[in-house]
Amino acid sequence: MSTLKSRKTDTRITLRELADRTNSELDGDGSIEICGAATITAATTGDITFVANERYLKFLATTKASAVVLDRQVPCTHLAVLRHDNPYLVFAEVVDILYPTEAKTAAGIDDSAIVSADATVAPDACIGPLCRVGGGTSIGRNTRLISSVYVGENVTIGENCLLYPGVAILNDCIIGNNVIIHPSGVIGSDGFGFAESDKGLKKVKQIGWVEIGDDVEIGAGTTIDRGALGPTKVGKGTKIDNLVQIAHNVEIGNNCIIVSQVGISGSTKLGNSVILAGQVGIVGHVEIGEGAVIGAQSGVSKSVGAGKTMFGYPAREIMQMKRIDACLTKLPELFKRVKKLEDES
Amino acid sequence: MSTLKSRKTDTRITLRELADRTNSELDGDGSIEICGAATITAATTGDITFVANERYLKFLATTKASAVVLDRQVPCTHLAVLRHDNPYLVFAEVVDILYPTEAKTAAGIDDSAIVSADATVAPDACIGPLCRVGGGTSIGRNTRLISSVYVGENVTIGENCLLYPGVAILNDCIIGNNVIIHPSGVIGSDGFGFAESDKGLKKVKQIGWVEIGDDVEIGAGTTIDRGALGPTKVGKGTKIDNLVQIAHNVEIGNNCIIVSQVGISGSTKLGNSVILAGQVGIVGHVEIGEGAVIGAQSGVSKSVGAGKTMFGYPAREIMQMKRIDACLTKLPELFKRVKKLEDES
Amino acid sequence: MSTLKSRKTDTRITLRELADRTNSELDGDGSIEICGAATITAATTGDITFVANERYLKFLATTKASAVVLDRQVPCTHLAVLRHDNPYLVFAEVVDILYPTEAKTAAGIDDSAIVSADATVAPDACIGPLCRVGGGTSIGRNTRLISSVYVGENVTIGENCLLYPGVAILNDCIIGNNVIIHPSGVIGSDGFGFAESDKGLKKVKQIGWVEIGDDVEIGAGTTIDRGALGPTKVGKGTKIDNLVQIAHNVEIGNNCIIVSQVGISGSTKLGNSVILAGQVGIVGHVEIGEGAVIGAQSGVSKSVGAGKTMFGYPAREIMQMKRIDACLTKLPELFKRVKKLEDES
Repeated sequence: MSTLKSRKTDTRITLRELADRTNSELDGDGSIEICGAATITAATTGDITFVANERYLKFLATTKASAVVLDRQVPCTHLAVLRHDNPYLVFAEVVDILYPTEAKTAAGIDDSAIVSADATVAPDACIGPLCRVGGGTSIGRNTRLISSVYVGENVTIGENCLLYPGVAILNDCIIGNNVIIHPSGVIGSDGFGFAESDKGLKKVKQIGWVEIGDDVEIGAGTTIDRGALGPTKVGKGTKIDNLVQIAHNVEIGNNCIIVSQVGISGSTKLGNSVILAGQVGIVGHVEIGEGAVIGAQSGVSKSVGAGKTMFGYPAREIMQMKRIDACLTKLPELFKRVKKLEDES
Repeated sequence: MSTLKSRKTDTRITLRELADRTNSELDGDGSIEICGAATITAATTGDITFVANERYLKFLATTKASAVVLDRQVPCTHLAVLRHDNPYLVFAEVVDILYPTEAKTAAGIDDSAIVSADATVAPDACIGPLCRVGGGTSIGRNTRLISSVYVGENVTIGENCLLYPGVAILNDCIIGNNVIIHPSGVIGSDGFGFAESDKGLKKVKQIGWVEIGDDVEIGAGTTIDRGALGPTKVGKGTKIDNLVQIAHNVEIGNNCIIVSQVGISGSTKLGNSVILAGQVGIVGHVEIGEGAVIGAQSGVSKSVGAGKTMFGYPAREIMQMKRIDACLTKLPELFKRVKKLEDES
Repeated sequence: MSTLKSRKTDTRITLRELADRTNSELDGDGSIEICGAATITAATTGDITFVANERYLKFLATTKASAVVLDRQVPCTHLAVLRHDNPYLVFAEVVDILYPTEAKTAAGIDDSAIVSADATVAPDACIGPLCRVGGGTSIGRNTRLISSVYVGENVTIGENCLLYPGVAILNDCIIGNNVIIHPSGVIGSDGFGFAESDKGLKKVKQIGWVEIGDDVEIGAGTTIDRGALGPTKVGKGTKIDNLVQIAHNVEIGNNCIIVSQVGISGSTKLGNSVILAGQVGIVGHVEIGEGAVIGAQSGVSKSVGAGKTMFGYPAREIMQMKRIDACLTKLPELFKRVKKLEDES
């Protein structure tokens, strides 16, 4: 294995220019040339780094970076600094400047792709090798299917989307603009619906579809089932991590953050700006209010009000759960204390 | 995003005909023409809807549906009704009638598919674009590989199966009839077996296979490992949701329901009609008895008797777990009560 | 479904030869010919079996196997035995001998594969049907891409690797020698990084990569995200099961065992020989010390010292967790005992 290292670019940009382009405050020598972005421990001369999580502040004294993006309050005199109330956002903008996306895909339909004569593909879209696009489907401007992407019949895909290898988008689904779907993401698989019958479990045909809003990102291996009858919806700006399961008829609001391995059961609704941490499970047919935050691995079996922070299995309000958890630590001792009281009584 | 809507078909069927074909009781105007099926809140004129979960009964008064499928006991006079003891089953049959499956795939082998000369493919089977079928493999009548499906060597696939894009079925596996495998389902990956040795972890070659019974459905991204030495088995009529992990040498009975993100460890056996709710984990080498039900996110570390309902981490019988959970809510208060007793003693 | 059966090979090897080649002790008739390996309940005449887990010892008296691999101490007189301190390792070696891997893939690039003119492929490597290999990528000696494998730009893949169908290895990743990646494994998907901004969540471009050491095995559907800035690392000899999520900038040591459906959050570090049981979740930015063992479904929210065994949600040291769990069983009774004390006081 190679040792930890940072990635230099051919770009050379002065710190002053970075300050100007990111609307951050320059604190130090603006003539320094920056040619890379790196973590605080991996950075070397020419790199810019950042601190947004205070547990990394301890490395500030020893970093080999040439500059650092910091919150306005953090003292730092030995390094050139870009200061801003939101250093992580500024650093994200710096990375965009230093590492502009190079189009590695050419517009047009690769010879090995199988595209229905009845599909509509924008002239500057890219249908990469070994893709398959079905009839009645439309693919918008500058959208790129990297390789081995499957798009079914009557699918609508907007502009500037990026579909990675192994993605499958099944019939009748609707994808907005600027949507990114990572490898092996599945959109529009059948919901899990069966009716009991004398002859065993009868499949309930899933005739719905999936609607993905603009600016949504969907992680690798994530599965989003089509609605049983109507849509499963993911709202504008929502970000979904890897290996998440979203069941049929779920409706997710805008700007939600859904971390890896979460499972959301059928017909559950999430308001805007909900955060579900990793491995959370939510039962079907409940509502999670706007801005609610659910801690990692929690099991949610009831609706959650707007703005609440929940944790645990089963999930409770976080302060209550913390009190209970503190009690658990002392529970064996409590048994002894009760025994002592009984012996004395 | 489009607004919630229902899907109309070109089909027009009277309510009387639907009653006749589903053996349900007509309660109201049988001459009403039905042209769509929708949820109770999305339905519009011409649609039929249903109530099978009592939490949706409140929408019955205001639905815009033209007819509804209900249990025999539910009062309803303002709408035409199909009544049956199993309204969900009747609704499933209604959906089948209103939305007959259109074959969108032609029989035969697509020009872009790579099929071994040594494979046997039924004349009316469909091997779609960019599929690969290995030598010694047989594919039964009317089975459809939609696109980019991989089938290894010496695989047997029965009749009327439906394999979605990205499915991989590895060497020597056996798939029954009427099996559906959703996108990126993996059948026959190596089991996770390693022996400790002086040189690190030595792979234990996995020389077994997977046997999938008739009428099984397997969700998107689900992985079923081959046995180490013999088979991993999934019994007839069992339904498996998305992103489930089934380890080597697991044996699952008939008509089980395995919800999303469940993990079943090696050599564990499930009886018939077992239900595992979402995100359940089961250790290896145990047995789950016929008809047992395991609640969501439970962690099962011991065998479970037939008919038991278990819940929790670690899983306990549900009534015991509910009692413990109720105590947890009052646990901080219990500490205060004991403190008071100690102060008074 | 077929009934349980064992798999015979055309190989015929005497028990004496197996003892010699595995450095195990022959206890019984060395002239017995072995032609298969099977579990203790499935074995028939000609098979060799093993017992490494004492719960299977009860089948020793009735197995139909012709020979068995056992620990040195286990009494057994009615069957020929190979004895060794590590019977599972010897059995693994026996399986290798009885079932030598047959190369089912020919060296060279399949006509249907799309390989960049700018890629370097070793002459004896196999690029199977419908694979895609990008520019600047090198693929080492005897490495096999079975079918429908995607390899991006500037990827380095070592020797003797085996990449199953649907695997995607994205730009700039580095794969060592003897690495196995099972179907739909994803290496180098973007990490999940977003900065809050006035316009919603801004994507933090993920410009890092993934480094996989020698002798690593990666399960089906497992996703390993690229670092945000530098590498995500998996150390030599580590084995990862199916549907595992490894977030950006995670660093995993050597010879770790990571069981199915585990999730490891960003920037967390694992020492060597760590064991994470199924469905474990670990928060970001913590360290798990060498040799630590985390029990199934545990939720780890803090760093764990070397050699510790942790369990629970939230995870505690295992002995403490067992004491607490024993108390939970008696908790409803404790409430009654306290009530009695209160009534008496």
